[in-house]
Amino acid sequence: MELLQSYIDRIINTALEEDIHYVDVTSDLLIDPQATSTARWIAKAEGVVCGLKIAARVFTTLDPEAKVELLAEEGAAVKKGDILLTVQGKTAAMLKAERTALNIACHMSGISTQTAECVRRVAGTKASVCDTRKTLPGLRPLQKYAVVMGGGRNHRYNLSDAAMLKDNHIDAYGSITAAVAAFRSRCSHMTKIEVEARNLKELAEGIAAGADVVMLDNMTPAQMAEAVAFADGRVILEASGNITLDNIAEVAASGVDLISLGALTHSVRCFDISMKIVK
Amino acid sequence: MELLQSYIDRIINTALEEDIHYVDVTSDLLIDPQATSTARWIAKAEGVVCGLKIAARVFTTLDPEAKVELLAEEGAAVKKGDILLTVQGKTAAMLKAERTALNIACHMSGISTQTAECVRRVAGTKASVCDTRKTLPGLRPLQKYAVVMGGGRNHRYNLSDAAMLKDNHIDAYGSITAAVAAFRSRCSHMTKIEVEARNLKELAEGIAAGADVVMLDNMTPAQMAEAVAFADGRVILEASGNITLDNIAEVAASGVDLISLGALTHSVRCFDISMKIVK
Amino acid sequence: MELLQSYIDRIINTALEEDIHYVDVTSDLLIDPQATSTARWIAKAEGVVCGLKIAARVFTTLDPEAKVELLAEEGAAVKKGDILLTVQGKTAAMLKAERTALNIACHMSGISTQTAECVRRVAGTKASVCDTRKTLPGLRPLQKYAVVMGGGRNHRYNLSDAAMLKDNHIDAYGSITAAVAAFRSRCSHMTKIEVEARNLKELAEGIAAGADVVMLDNMTPAQMAEAVAFADGRVILEASGNITLDNIAEVAASGVDLISLGALTHSVRCFDISMKIVK
Amino acid sequence: MELLQSYIDRIINTALEEDIHYVDVTSDLLIDPQATSTARWIAKAEGVVCGLKIAARVFTTLDPEAKVELLAEEGAAVKKGDILLTVQGKTAAMLKAERTALNIACHMSGISTQTAECVRRVAGTKASVCDTRKTLPGLRPLQKYAVVMGGGRNHRYNLSDAAMLKDNHIDAYGSITAAVAAFRSRCSHMTKIEVEARNLKELAEGIAAGADVVMLDNMTPAQMAEAVAFADGRVILEASGNITLDNIAEVAASGVDLISLGALTHSVRCFDISMKIVK
Amino acid sequence: MELLQSYIDRIINTALEEDIHYVDVTSDLLIDPQATSTARWIAKAEGVVCGLKIAARVFTTLDPEAKVELLAEEGAAVKKGDILLTVQGKTAAMLKAERTALNIACHMSGISTQTAECVRRVAGTKASVCDTRKTLPGLRPLQKYAVVMGGGRNHRYNLSDAAMLKDNHIDAYGSITAAVAAFRSRCSHMTKIEVEARNLKELAEGIAAGADVVMLDNMTPAQMAEAVAFADGRVILEASGNITLDNIAEVAASGVDLISLGALTHSVRCFDISMKIVK
Amino acid sequence: MELLQSYIDRIINTALEEDIHYVDVTSDLLIDPQATSTARWIAKAEGVVCGLKIAARVFTTLDPEAKVELLAEEGAAVKKGDILLTVQGKTAAMLKAERTALNIACHMSGISTQTAECVRRVAGTKASVCDTRKTLPGLRPLQKYAVVMGGGRNHRYNLSDAAMLKDNHIDAYGSITAAVAAFRSRCSHMTKIEVEARNLKELAEGIAAGADVVMLDNMTPAQMAEAVAFADGRVILEASGNITLDNIAEVAASGVDLISLGALTHSVRCFDISMKIVK
Repeated sequence: MELLQSYIDRIINTALEEDIHYVDVTSDLLIDPQATSTARWIAKAEGVVCGLKIAARVFTTLDPEAKVELLAEEGAAVKKGDILLTVQGKTAAMLKAERTALNIACHMSGISTQTAECVRRVAGTKASVCDTRKTLPGLRPLQKYAVVMGGGRNHRYNLSDAAMLKDNHIDAYGSITAAVAAFRSRCSHMTKIEVEARNLKELAEGIAAGADVVMLDNMTPAQMAEAVAFADGRVILEASGNITLDNIAEVAASGVDLISLGALTHSVRCFDISMKIVK
Repeated sequence: MELLQSYIDRIINTALEEDIHYVDVTSDLLIDPQATSTARWIAKAEGVVCGLKIAARVFTTLDPEAKVELLAEEGAAVKKGDILLTVQGKTAAMLKAERTALNIACHMSGISTQTAECVRRVAGTKASVCDTRKTLPGLRPLQKYAVVMGGGRNHRYNLSDAAMLKDNHIDAYGSITAAVAAFRSRCSHMTKIEVEARNLKELAEGIAAGADVVMLDNMTPAQMAEAVAFADGRVILEASGNITLDNIAEVAASGVDLISLGALTHSVRCFDISMKIVK
Repeated sequence: MELLQSYIDRIINTALEEDIHYVDVTSDLLIDPQATSTARWIAKAEGVVCGLKIAARVFTTLDPEAKVELLAEEGAAVKKGDILLTVQGKTAAMLKAERTALNIACHMSGISTQTAECVRRVAGTKASVCDTRKTLPGLRPLQKYAVVMGGGRNHRYNLSDAAMLKDNHIDAYGSITAAVAAFRSRCSHMTKIEVEARNLKELAEGIAAGADVVMLDNMTPAQMAEAVAFADGRVILEASGNITLDNIAEVAASGVDLISLGALTHSVRCFDISMKIVK
Repeated sequence: MELLQSYIDRIINTALEEDIHYVDVTSDLLIDPQATSTARWIAKAEGVVCGLKIAARVFTTLDPEAKVELLAEEGAAVKKGDILLTVQGKTAAMLKAERTALNIACHMSGISTQTAECVRRVAGTKASVCDTRKTLPGLRPLQKYAVVMGGGRNHRYNLSDAAMLKDNHIDAYGSITAAVAAFRSRCSHMTKIEVEARNLKELAEGIAAGADVVMLDNMTPAQMAEAVAFADGRVILEASGNITLDNIAEVAASGVDLISLGALTHSVRCFDISMKIVK
Repeated sequence: MELLQSYIDRIINTALEEDIHYVDVTSDLLIDPQATSTARWIAKAEGVVCGLKIAARVFTTLDPEAKVELLAEEGAAVKKGDILLTVQGKTAAMLKAERTALNIACHMSGISTQTAECVRRVAGTKASVCDTRKTLPGLRPLQKYAVVMGGGRNHRYNLSDAAMLKDNHIDAYGSITAAVAAFRSRCSHMTKIEVEARNLKELAEGIAAGADVVMLDNMTPAQMAEAVAFADGRVILEASGNITLDNIAEVAASGVDLISLGALTHSVRCFDISMKIVK
Repeated sequence: MELLQSYIDRIINTALEEDIHYVDVTSDLLIDPQATSTARWIAKAEGVVCGLKIAARVFTTLDPEAKVELLAEEGAAVKKGDILLTVQGKTAAMLKAERTALNIACHMSGISTQTAECVRRVAGTKASVCDTRKTLPGLRPLQKYAVVMGGGRNHRYNLSDAAMLKDNHIDAYGSITAAVAAFRSRCSHMTKIEVEARNLKELAEGIAAGADVVMLDNMTPAQMAEAVAFADGRVILEASGNITLDNIAEVAASGVDLISLGALTHSVRCFDISMKIVK
């Protein structure tokens, strides 16, 4: 999976302009511009890393001659102390790039690590872990990429590419059946339709209306299991609402196909990586 | 404190383009474009909120005639169940704006809530709580604003506006004294200089060299207290490294002037707000 | 259906900067800046118009006090001589906006007119008319919107939001079955999968593999009818390749669900509208 | 003739972001990222091609190591079946670039082909074929470049770089004579002035007033011939209005210097090129 | 003359982001956000002012409710002590806008003042004063507008809109005659051609070749007078090179049509305006 | 000192788009695109040059294969006739780049030359020369860099990175003492505070209040000397207001630490450099 380079470069340049602004007074005034160094990135915890290719691009953006060696693949599980990459190049450029490169990779690796932990806890069930639209402004592609690197799947990317019929949409047509029919008659043939259901009755109506996916909204694992049994494979079932690391295994055990968690992208705990200049 | 409107509008438009892309297929195909509604934002937890003015701007960006009433000031402490704002306008526009507006305000309120909790725990000491450069790409101004709304202070904003002399800079000159002198002879008279110190010897050298601020790097609270006693008000002292909610009170008790935490901005826990359409 | 305003404003400003550059030497040097006029837009042919709201925005971009009255709805069928809009405001601004506003609306109305003609020719069949990714750089949202206004449907919007498995993708896995299975195991649950089929054997394999849509690639209407009979409603069938106004009715008669035409957006004949200043 | 690279890169990136959005789900999930291929572009019709250099840039934008060999010069006449370029590089990048590269080159080649046909039909007369400001938003430079590659000439590029006095401008001063004089006294010495004339009287006044160019607006070929005789080389004469492939030869035979056609850029028929992966 | 608003807004936002960055720490922390004031702009010298409308837009960009009254027209001659505008609105916004608004208006008024002085010195001759392409990056439209407001004229705006044949272009064809003919056969009919001449022989060749304008390059006033006599109205003559306020009257007396000065835009002396808060 | 490359590239592309627009009609139509040349830049006066690295980037932006050799370091003193750089590459690209490259380097070298002259005149005193916020829109980083290359220092870069308490801020709190205290209690610990003083009383209050810097506003050299004696090293003293080359030595002799001049950036006299094609 490859994010479009022009998007990545825009994020990198935005971040560098934010962090460096116009000059790095400390490094520009104190470091010999010709001095070179070698540095290592070291994992400070166990986890699943990603974004290292983007981090490498941050270094080469400021020093096109810098050599970066990636020592961990995107999505690789690493242990505390593992060396993730080495970079060799101009010291001043390296110090200027350091914070931006780390900010990006630590955030992305935080997401992939947390996603991988969720995936680990649902192992042995049929459930996949997926993200939501609860992302941070400008960072959605980075975040959704990191979810995939952590072993998760993506929900719809935006409001254009798939439909989610919620209360307001359904109320406008009086019933799930009418709303789905109205939508199907107008939408693209490439658009999937998901409907929110709060109970078995709504699930039944969603299935009958021909929804592709039904979201089980804030149900208990027991209710979900009942829904799974009722649906019997006729529709994709997504569990959503108040799911955490603590209860995800129980939710998965209900037999749902997907479990979506806003926390994967809206409450990210940074994965700690440190950079050491070794010579 | 007012962030520059053109920056805010750029963030909002970036986020809307990311979330809506070109159309909202669900709302565009199912909601009568003339239909209007009123909605409320409700706090789902206790905390300190901010970003509501920006959220309001998201609604009026998509529906210039929408009326938004802010019911909580920037930086206000709120309780679970408090109504934070009401918005009245076109239903379709409101549904399109909802996720983007919430994503921004929940992230910012998450930061201000966490900052306020840190501030609460250091109450009664002289310590202020401050942020770092460990921010997310493109979001630094939003995040630093939220820290201030939570009662914290800002560290330097970028590499141009203040100096931080770390190992590499000092090594290039052989000593703190020489590095500070070299820097002072070249830098702007409006630039403050901070020096990292790992022990009292380096603190003493930083003070003697005329640093404005000394960062006590990864010291224990006991070491910090010793440093405070040694410095005796001759320099501003900043505690940094491995500080969490659990140990922040103890750090503050050492007498340092500032405590900086990367987690305020790099590991934000979203503050939960829900939007309900009430009619 | 409402395109995101920030996208529209970017297109408008790009076009205005292209057409006016920095000043309109003729109008700036010869027209009294306070002079006002009223103008009308008149359809020079029969067709289906759209983009008039965007045209109105061009006028108000250059003269925020201009009053524009839209006399035809988006997607309305009009006759030669119909008045489409009137604009009242500063003469100089109106002359500067004229070409940009017409260029946009005439292009969009050309698309909706051609789409409507295709739709008319397939009336009475179950076939919908849809667009492709053969669009002009920067104009895809405008063009896809115009297709909908003409009564057509949109195919996938981009390479992220739906899958189309072509030769190269299938060859990489040895068979349609293997390729679809590989894709399904990794993709989002919200992503539809379309497979190209050149014959009934491939169609059969696509259906068995669980494709959502099968594209009948360059088949004759007779072959398509055979495919329709074979599929018997188990999959959505899209006809594609060398379809024109001349043969579209025959294609539709085969019973396919969709007919996609690149020409709707890659070979647009401008719909002629003239602007007359009436006082 | 070389369009500014930064403009071209902006068009390419806009188009790629529009077409790929963030990832190509099909190719990213199914194609081995290290796999390489060779592809050819083949003309599907006879015509005059251009934009191939830009197409090549699309491929190298996504795969900087891709090797593109151009087999037709900008503006070259090609026959159906001619190979226009070959590209060798990463398969996934090639598939992602394909549609964007083709969309640009097919549109541009459509313009140069249609222009060349117009030029062919006026061969033997003194008339040049030229474009207008009836272009598509954001694409004017691409389109005007393609007109030149097809053997045509460019009219003014925008409202800043030359003057065209129409009814409204003339009415503001009461006469062509007064309007031209007013304009000449204020404009740049590098600005040419064109005046619209509907009859010989206005032509005579335009010549006497010192216009550089007179546009014969919607005249018949017979009227134009009369105008040519009357002007007798004292002014450049441009024929405009309702000129098509069918009547262009007759218009040219009148002896006018230029024939401008909006259709060259506002009603472009795509030139068909196909891409085949050959290994 | 009206510069395109989107260009102006881009300049204003760039300048505000440069000057304010994200917050104005002084005003944001010390000024009551609801406090209002009235301020005046006062000319500190005699001159010709412009850019005041843009300055007004800076104020309303930061405070949409601010009321700005312009007391001097664009291009008006003012005396020391004249009040140029008043602004009434939020104090904090006014203080934030002050420097950006002044920087723009003082620079533009510096250009119009210097241009007006040149125009004054050539009064009574047929010479117009005009600018060159020696402008500052990003500011060309602002600067060329200011030249016009000072009573000057614009030379070509860029390399697309008119031709200037210099040594290198002429050498490529062996003679002025051949180069002009080659150019004329390919260029737009709306493009004027200027040729550089260092002596009467080249002037004669330029006239014979049909150049629209001949630039007399670094000639003495006496040589220019000879050139004027020789040309006898057959071509527009532009004097260029080493022309200053000291010798411009003498140059103008030679009878040339235009005098171009790089210094009008490359060596601008700021026109001093001060802002006083009056209540 | 290294300005961020993305900022420089944005300035360069903006300037190239402004100067070339879409094509250079003269060079594109007359110069063989394969022709190559070598050119030299020659100083036409004595001064201190900078911006040559940016000029080199302009050439390589248009011709990535061009070879540029820099013969003068950033900030080097040069004599009339010195060769500053040579460039070897495509003739057409070189002619297109020439004006943009010169416009940037001549402006920047004008600033560094004027700054160096100020620095020369204060030699032997303790005074440094510094800039202000009186810069041109979009050019602040280029201009502040040039001041440093001329031997000057930078004042604060923007309203975010340091505080300057002027009348309005002080009035809002009733006294310098109260305003400084209020500010200090809220601002970042990395922010310096400067206070304006019009007399010794205000200077005394500023020192007592703990200001880092006091600006002596429009004082005579004699008053400044008194202020220096009074302050006795307790605060940094900046002289500002009506300082020119004529009186700067006298101001410096007063013993102030800094002398700030708006003219360094708002009234720049271009440093003359010419480009000669040598073969």
